[in-house]
Amino acid sequence: MIILGIDPGIATLGYGVLRKEERGGIVAEDYGVVTTPKQERLPVRLAMLEEGLNKLLDRFAPDEVAVEELFFTKNVTTGIAVAHARGVALLTCVKRCGRLFEYTPMQIKQALTGYGKAEKRQIQLVTANLLHLKGVPRPDDAADALAVALCHSFTSRLSGLYTI
Amino acid sequence: MIILGIDPGIATLGYGVLRKEERGGIVAEDYGVVTTPKQERLPVRLAMLEEGLNKLLDRFAPDEVAVEELFFTKNVTTGIAVAHARGVALLTCVKRCGRLFEYTPMQIKQALTGYGKAEKRQIQLVTANLLHLKGVPRPDDAADALAVALCHSFTSRLSGLYTI
Repeated sequence: MIILGIDPGIATLGYGVLRKEERGGIVAEDYGVVTTPKQERLPVRLAMLEEGLNKLLDRFAPDEVAVEELFFTKNVTTGIAVAHARGVALLTCVKRCGRLFEYTPMQIKQALTGYGKAEKRQIQLVTANLLHLKGVPRPDDAADALAVALCHSFTSRLSGLYTI
Repeated sequence: MIILGIDPGIATLGYGVLRKEERGGIVAEDYGVVTTPKQERLPVRLAMLEEGLNKLLDRFAPDEVAVEELFFTKNVTTGIAVAHARGVALLTCVKRCGRLFEYTPMQIKQALTGYGKAEKRQIQLVTANLLHLKGVPRPDDAADALAVALCHSFTSRLSGLYTI
């Protein structure tokens, strides 16, 4: 089974692709980012994100998609831009894969370390360790996307099931 | 020329369609709302908004689209949901109509009344008056969408021009 994890963003959208094997093993198939240029206007950047996501959906044909939820404590303006991107990510994915799930940062931390307030660095180390990667995945957005995919592979909440 | 105005929202997305005639007259072709049920999950609601918008784009084939920008003073949580919807609206429209423009609430108020801090009710009355409507358009989201379309028809900022 293939799980696509997504960490939404307008300048950088992280993705991580996991293969869950029948015997229970989990392998990182791929991870990386879709980027859009800062100087481009918002609607065009959103169209670029959609294009990038559709390429990933074509290439990996995920059985399930896990998308990180937004959590704001700092910058509302940045949050609004990310929410635009997240809307596009949810739309693009749900059209291609009805099994779409959402997880909060706290749920991801809880699933990976047993502690909902774990440090970012700790999550990255656990992610690298669980996936037998040689180092922490780069950039951070790709690591975060692998983490949400891992969180989903551990919890697989049926409550998050969408059919469209 | 046909202008489609959009007031983004997740539960209720307002739209207003104006025809700008060669002699300078402006006629309201249609206005209304696309709604999504509260109990439905966010990705499904976003897909419903996309479907509703695509029907409007099919039906009216607008030459230009004007979308209201978000402005938050009150509820950040609501704002985040609206930003998801707005991302979908911008994406859906820019894919079908490269001439896509964005206006802040203050720009709309300024264009319609000459005063950037005009009251909502005043904007609605001016909108009804300019379009020779018998009463204030209902619901508010439809009235707001007509107002952003009117604002665009008056200002037509070339700086907002997108090609994709």
